[in-house]
Amino acid sequence: MHEIFQMKGISRSQSCRAGAGHSRGAVGRLARLHSSLLTRASGALSAEPQAAKQAQKASNRQQKKQGATVAITPRSEDFSRWYLDVVREAQLADYGPVRGTMVIRPYGYAIWEAIQSYLDADFKATGHRNAYFPQLIPLSFLEKEAEHVEGFAPELALVTRGGGKELEEPLVVRPTSETIVNHMFSQWVQSYRDLPLLINQWANVHRWEMRTRPFVRTLEFLWQEGHTAHATAEEAEEETLRMLRVYENFAINVAAMPVIAGRKSRRESFAGANCTYTIEAMMGDRRALQAGTSHNLGDNFARAFGTRYLAEDNELKFVHQSSWGVSTRMVGGVIMTHGDDTGLQLPPLLAPVQVVVVPIGKGADLESVLAAARRMEAELRAAGVRVEVDNTPGRTPGWKFNHHEMRGVPVRIEVGPRDVEAGTCVLARRDQPSKEGKKFGVALEGEPFVAEVQNLLHEVQAALLAKATAFRDANIADVGDYDELKEAIAQGKWARGPWAGTDEEEVQVKEETQATLRCFPFEQPPHSGVCLFSGRPATEVAIFGKSY
Amino acid sequence: MHEIFQMKGISRSQSCRAGAGHSRGAVGRLARLHSSLLTRASGALSAEPQAAKQAQKASNRQQKKQGATVAITPRSEDFSRWYLDVVREAQLADYGPVRGTMVIRPYGYAIWEAIQSYLDADFKATGHRNAYFPQLIPLSFLEKEAEHVEGFAPELALVTRGGGKELEEPLVVRPTSETIVNHMFSQWVQSYRDLPLLINQWANVHRWEMRTRPFVRTLEFLWQEGHTAHATAEEAEEETLRMLRVYENFAINVAAMPVIAGRKSRRESFAGANCTYTIEAMMGDRRALQAGTSHNLGDNFARAFGTRYLAEDNELKFVHQSSWGVSTRMVGGVIMTHGDDTGLQLPPLLAPVQVVVVPIGKGADLESVLAAARRMEAELRAAGVRVEVDNTPGRTPGWKFNHHEMRGVPVRIEVGPRDVEAGTCVLARRDQPSKEGKKFGVALEGEPFVAEVQNLLHEVQAALLAKATAFRDANIADVGDYDELKEAIAQGKWARGPWAGTDEEEVQVKEETQATLRCFPFEQPPHSGVCLFSGRPATEVAIFGKSY
Repeated sequence: MHEIFQMKGISRSQSCRAGAGHSRGAVGRLARLHSSLLTRASGALSAEPQAAKQAQKASNRQQKKQGATVAITPRSEDFSRWYLDVVREAQLADYGPVRGTMVIRPYGYAIWEAIQSYLDADFKATGHRNAYFPQLIPLSFLEKEAEHVEGFAPELALVTRGGGKELEEPLVVRPTSETIVNHMFSQWVQSYRDLPLLINQWANVHRWEMRTRPFVRTLEFLWQEGHTAHATAEEAEEETLRMLRVYENFAINVAAMPVIAGRKSRRESFAGANCTYTIEAMMGDRRALQAGTSHNLGDNFARAFGTRYLAEDNELKFVHQSSWGVSTRMVGGVIMTHGDDTGLQLPPLLAPVQVVVVPIGKGADLESVLAAARRMEAELRAAGVRVEVDNTPGRTPGWKFNHHEMRGVPVRIEVGPRDVEAGTCVLARRDQPSKEGKKFGVALEGEPFVAEVQNLLHEVQAALLAKATAFRDANIADVGDYDELKEAIAQGKWARGPWAGTDEEEVQVKEETQATLRCFPFEQPPHSGVCLFSGRPATEVAIFGKSY
Repeated sequence: MHEIFQMKGISRSQSCRAGAGHSRGAVGRLARLHSSLLTRASGALSAEPQAAKQAQKASNRQQKKQGATVAITPRSEDFSRWYLDVVREAQLADYGPVRGTMVIRPYGYAIWEAIQSYLDADFKATGHRNAYFPQLIPLSFLEKEAEHVEGFAPELALVTRGGGKELEEPLVVRPTSETIVNHMFSQWVQSYRDLPLLINQWANVHRWEMRTRPFVRTLEFLWQEGHTAHATAEEAEEETLRMLRVYENFAINVAAMPVIAGRKSRRESFAGANCTYTIEAMMGDRRALQAGTSHNLGDNFARAFGTRYLAEDNELKFVHQSSWGVSTRMVGGVIMTHGDDTGLQLPPLLAPVQVVVVPIGKGADLESVLAAARRMEAELRAAGVRVEVDNTPGRTPGWKFNHHEMRGVPVRIEVGPRDVEAGTCVLARRDQPSKEGKKFGVALEGEPFVAEVQNLLHEVQAALLAKATAFRDANIADVGDYDELKEAIAQGKWARGPWAGTDEEEVQVKEETQATLRCFPFEQPPHSGVCLFSGRPATEVAIFGKSY
């Protein structure tokens, strides 16, 4: 299921328009600050005083004894609270002590590790090698690229003291690494033989955000940042698109997130890039999430840092560059794409635990059931399935069912004494919690058993993608004029229509509707050719939506 | 070859003595600053001005055309310069723009990735799960554990501005995470059922060091830090030793570094620990390198942060903890253990490239040779060998041989037109550069070929360990009194003898000889029972040596 994505043809009109000189990204960043829905929940995940904690603990224990699980807010009632409830109850993350920071708990981190393992393999298969650049960057480096510093200055964390002394120059805690990478590239690249230079880095970055939300926007987050240098503008553009396609393939075929790939408007592009490509995902509340971006940097940083190479014609030329990144935000995307009122729901390819076996029984019965469960576990593990037996004492089967549904485990196997006698078990799929989602009388050993489980995992993976795709398609409205756009946005949908507006007109739409231009999708539907806003001739359709 | 280490019995006298109240670690840290050999090379790896770079480039190209490689300083002449030359010429690392920071280049990072993959598997096999804690820690957290802050305060980097504003409380860029981990553990741990809590984190850390050296000591480095909480002191001690044994096993059986495992003196223990265990490695210049440590933290941090659990007897008790870490310093250890005057030498299990195939020939000949090389590459890769064909045009075979010897590739395969005709090839091992290290007439295809290569890789792995072990053993002197110790240290050796000295006497040895107490080794040789320094009765033998 996981293969390197084949490059699709990109029409010329969709490729990057270089050289536009705008304050890219800065406005989008400001707007985020105003989005009233992104407020941090009032201490819901933060440290509670000891007394309240003990009381809560006692209350939890009572609930647990009764086989109940902690309730989460229904999605329909308050999506934002639902999200925070799931993050807390599935033990994905906690707030750190510094405002806006996040502790990624083991279960949440295991999802990130799965994301890393797929992407890292993809990067290596496309010729990239990992490296590590220092996190502390002289402030003067950022100032070398005018738009870059304008975009990032408001979000910087600065180290001003080190080893007990005031520093002569403040050091920036990296918000991204283009500047320090170019400082090194300018030393490493000398001749055309050194190109292309294809580097990736797995690292932590800091951006001083005011409104935070676990995984989606945090003061510190984990990501990978690819940085490449090429001899020509064409090669840099090819690379930029190639890596976006790697992200698109991962999102769709591994994370089961039916993203829409496209080009950002100039306003929404990365600060310092000629052009930004994006994958946009629709969350369960129909807001857009920018799930990954790939930037064509042109020679902007090369000029700022003197990154030149001796070409075959013996001339010194600037390199052309790309950078691209995916972050722990992807975990938030997975939660908000697939989760439901029962809790988290994980696509099998990313699930730290794909199958949980719940043995049911008491006393001597339990022993034979447990023995069967262990055999199932061994068989599945040998076949490469990530499986766990939940043998926790003192919990009812019902409590365990709820618990693993909350954690989003894709497939549950139930086995009791009568099943063992009959040589069968019951398979239950997380995405269909009712009886229709159960398969009874499945052989509990041997090849047929393993094959049945593996097929079911594939089915669940495909079903999650199909469901999310249908949801997305039902919530994109094709609009022909501004009134239709406003109506679609008011209904919570994405609006898709021909766009030839100016930057100022894009700002106006945002101010009046809170929707931003998410992208000019690569896959363009047929359209009227008339800009929905200005009435000018339009060559492209754009998608607008409210976003995280 | 890579298996989880079996716990060896640890005698009672070697286990940790808890509760001693000294300024641990602080003195050792101060001493490091004074060690005159750890100076940064005068710009050898730093950025050169553009003009010098171009001139150097031209000169390099000339050298390369003549089949020469860049010379490195002989180890015997200046070990420190030899090390920096190897790091530069094998493209392992560069200095970053901020004093003391390091850029880990792809080839160096690939060694770190190999280290990570082994250790991460070991941690998971011993029940640990990865998580991620915020890097920025309120300064007040560090102050909660008195010895901890005393040990780390001189080395801290502080963030004082964020988002354009002065912060109310400075934030520490983590030098280690015990404090923030305990802040979270105190929320996560409630009952004995939550224990043991076994967490690991892969992260970057900062320590404001004055004297730096790539990999060995840098302002920022990469590491893993394990953090665990247990119900009893006994369990914490078991865990502390278990993880040291994991490190010992990795160092010996993967990195081919014959480390000596033992207990640190109180003076040299971690700031905030009851007791520190260590693996000590002997470098090529016979200096000791502390290659990994495991700390029994007792309940020191638990008391500072209120990390308590409700025990089965219904009493609230403090948890007992361990922490343990291995860093990118291990890469420096590998370089300085195995490298020689020809350059880097990598143990096959850690080598990013285990085998390089160098096709030899011209014109039409080269085509058939190259075809054979590609078949060999495919067969080896299918067998799990990390193999590369060096088909770079414009380089002589001699240049390539030197180049891959410099990079420390364990096995080279040479194949020319006559070899292809005869159906054979030549295997050359990096650890025996002369003709004796070559095997002629090896079948160039099929199972015998693959088996021959795999056997050779095992042989090289074992030979590197055997050689390093013999070197180490030849350079440890058993000493019975202080004069003998001084003599051994003056000869550059490690001195091993009975020790019952006080902290002050330990400091005196250091001041007079520059040697520090490396450890009380777990494997104790027979000894006189009389302290070599004070003449007091001694129950243990200690090892002294100069160190990095």
